[in-house]
Amino acid sequence: MIKTDILIIGAGPTGLFTVFEAGLLKLKTHLIDALPQPGGQCSELYPKKPIYDIPGFPEIKAGDLVDNLMEQIKPFSPGFTLGERAETIEKLEDGSFIVTTNKGTQHHAPVIAIAGGLGSFEPKKPLIDNIADYEDNGVAYMIKDPEVYRDKKVVIAGGGDSALDWSIFLADVASEVTLVHRRNEFRGALDSVEKVGELAKLGKINLVTRAEVVGLLGEGHLNSVVINHADEGEFIRETDYFIPLFGLSPKLGPIADWGLEIEKNAIKVDNSYDYSTNIPGIYAIGDVNTYKGKLKLILSGFHEAAIMCQSAYQRIFPDKRYVMKYTTVGGIQGFDGTKKEAKKEVIKAIEV
Amino acid sequence: MIKTDILIIGAGPTGLFTVFEAGLLKLKTHLIDALPQPGGQCSELYPKKPIYDIPGFPEIKAGDLVDNLMEQIKPFSPGFTLGERAETIEKLEDGSFIVTTNKGTQHHAPVIAIAGGLGSFEPKKPLIDNIADYEDNGVAYMIKDPEVYRDKKVVIAGGGDSALDWSIFLADVASEVTLVHRRNEFRGALDSVEKVGELAKLGKINLVTRAEVVGLLGEGHLNSVVINHADEGEFIRETDYFIPLFGLSPKLGPIADWGLEIEKNAIKVDNSYDYSTNIPGIYAIGDVNTYKGKLKLILSGFHEAAIMCQSAYQRIFPDKRYVMKYTTVGGIQGFDGTKKEAKKEVIKAIEV
Ligand SMILES: Cc1cc2nc3c(=O)[nH]c(=O)nc-3n(C[C@H](O)[C@H](O)[C@H](O)COP(=O)(O)OP(=O)(O)OC[C@H]3O[C@@H](n4cnc5c(N)ncnc54)[C@H](O)[C@@H]3O)c2cc1C
Ligand SMILES: Cc1cc2nc3c(=O)[nH]c(=O)nc-3n(C[C@H](O)[C@H](O)[C@H](O)COP(=O)(O)OP(=O)(O)OC[C@H]3O[C@@H](n4cnc5c(N)ncnc54)[C@H](O)[C@@H]3O)c2cc1C
Repeated sequence: MIKTDILIIGAGPTGLFTVFEAGLLKLKTHLIDALPQPGGQCSELYPKKPIYDIPGFPEIKAGDLVDNLMEQIKPFSPGFTLGERAETIEKLEDGSFIVTTNKGTQHHAPVIAIAGGLGSFEPKKPLIDNIADYEDNGVAYMIKDPEVYRDKKVVIAGGGDSALDWSIFLADVASEVTLVHRRNEFRGALDSVEKVGELAKLGKINLVTRAEVVGLLGEGHLNSVVINHADEGEFIRETDYFIPLFGLSPKLGPIADWGLEIEKNAIKVDNSYDYSTNIPGIYAIGDVNTYKGKLKLILSGFHEAAIMCQSAYQRIFPDKRYVMKYTTVGGIQGFDGTKKEAKKEVIKAIEV
Repeated sequence: MIKTDILIIGAGPTGLFTVFEAGLLKLKTHLIDALPQPGGQCSELYPKKPIYDIPGFPEIKAGDLVDNLMEQIKPFSPGFTLGERAETIEKLEDGSFIVTTNKGTQHHAPVIAIAGGLGSFEPKKPLIDNIADYEDNGVAYMIKDPEVYRDKKVVIAGGGDSALDWSIFLADVASEVTLVHRRNEFRGALDSVEKVGELAKLGKINLVTRAEVVGLLGEGHLNSVVINHADEGEFIRETDYFIPLFGLSPKLGPIADWGLEIEKNAIKVDNSYDYSTNIPGIYAIGDVNTYKGKLKLILSGFHEAAIMCQSAYQRIFPDKRYVMKYTTVGGIQGFDGTKKEAKKEVIKAIEV
């Protein structure tokens, strides 16, 4: 059982910054995300695109913002349960919660911060009858640890950035990479498309276009896929893994059944105070919440996280009074032993 | 008469970012600040100190944050009335406002955003009987345009960063710089203290320590100061300017008399919606406002600015419906003709 002070569901920009604000209050945090990497929409949907409205950054790539946030929260050593979806919640008698993921991992905390954005990112799965039988047995919809594929045969399907980028990456890791796509046109960053073209010419990626994976074969574990080519018809290719990368789309999912007040597919919160939900101890911040005038902006998630952590502190320590100190004045005391602080002014005589 | 869509009182980080959020909505902005430079507390009180809780910046100097914000808002060409205090407000029949400064500059706008922080920065003045007679006639409490002092004789008083930094700067501009301080110890950044020591040795700054300016002389315009030295007693020094830099401290000041609901020396706002005050058309954002759970943090001012601008838009264009577009998707169309936008994805065939 993982124990923490604030359990954060969703490791998008809002969830990540919550780690920082909680850390300033000396509260420990742990994040759960269905994605294999932190960053939410920024990492999954537009990592290479510029954002112009993050205050203080005339321009920053979404992926760089996530990297910066990871660097900023590092002193507060957050825990991560990645690639798992928070599925069920149970309220204990003492008011604390146990949250269990779809893989059975359990987390225990007195406060839950739902920073679930537009919802848990779920893969779009190809319509192949027996695909569910091979999930975790040769079929994967996202790549958590590329080392799994070292010296293995891999078939990737898809025509976007994910399919392109992972084909490029795995070309150096797997023993064989086959990229299957329905068209011979790809949609993605120019350099990725060109790189795949080069690797295909060098024989490091088998490019099979105008084709689709239509069947899966193997006893227990996958051992080959059936590919249907527009001109040549069906053929079988041996493989250890089949990775369809058709994109992930967010679904509010199980959280919708936790007894929270839902409005417009989002969680209603008290924005006149602390972004608490109708269940005491559960807060909702960032894109996942709704209130009058709500803007689904990254900068709003940051503010909501700061406010929410103050309220969480009061909840966890009802008898303590927290006196806010500016970071400039108080510095940062990391849980990892690191310290940051402003240089003190000097008082110095000038001798002439 | 200066005309704009949103008149922003206070050019601290909150006021500055309001320019950006208004600009996204194609609303023009103009800022008034009592200080000669933008940046509010960040520029005036701790420009060289690091802030650790600006989201996305593991560390940023307060002065750099202000520079970044100035760069970010540049496309929206804000107007500035600097070094003047917003003094009076008048509501016209059509619901719009005229705001007049202590220097008589008039501004007209349908919406007022008060981003006045802890208040208008007012100089701490030395207790010299006739000092008021020389204000704007040889006595200045802050430096707006250093060129005024080119080839002039200047006496600066003070022992902190401002007095140190301006003495260093003016040593190259003025014909003579005298720095008068009560002690021979200075309090400031190490490099500034050391630099003043060097310049004093080189004779580029006349350092008069353990001394005070106690009298001002001259017909109409200042022509000399009386300095009282701890050991040597009083003597007269000719000068064109006397600039006491004893720090500025913020005072809510005239805004307190505008009929706004004040609580804890701050303006009460409706944080459950749009940070509006009790006077329709006047909003208060950033450190200057108060509500349940308020945190006087820079990141909160940013969020409040974004929300407030949406409401201002509805007020100015009651019949238009604004559909928010992510900056990543819609790009930035500057009023200055500049354009920023994300590179489009390519759709490209791969030929093998
Ligand atoms: C193309 C595009 C451009 C954009 N441009 C801008 C812009 O310019 N400016 C701006 O401010 N915003 C922009 N946005 C919006 C911005 O990305 C979101 O506001 C931001 O990502 C919200 O952050 P969040 O942390 O609240 O949620 P998200 O980033 O959505 O992260 C939520 C995370 O929670 C996880 N999650 C949800 N439920 C569960 C569960 N049950 N179990 C496990 N994990 C779960 C999800 O997998 C996800 O990773 C843009 C969005 C897109 C798609
Ligand atoms: C030493 C120190 C360290 C800090 N560290 C941090 C930190 O680590 N993190 C953090 O988030 N915050 C920190 N703060 C607080 C932060 O600086 C403020 O929250 C922030 O400056 C508020 O921004 P603002 O734009 O709302 O107001 P301000 O920065 O106060 O700016 C308001 C401006 O309005 C002007 N003004 C007011 N009334 C009038 C008028 N009538 N006419 C003309 N002009 C007027 C003032 O002159 C001023 O320039 C710190 C503050 C200090 C002093």
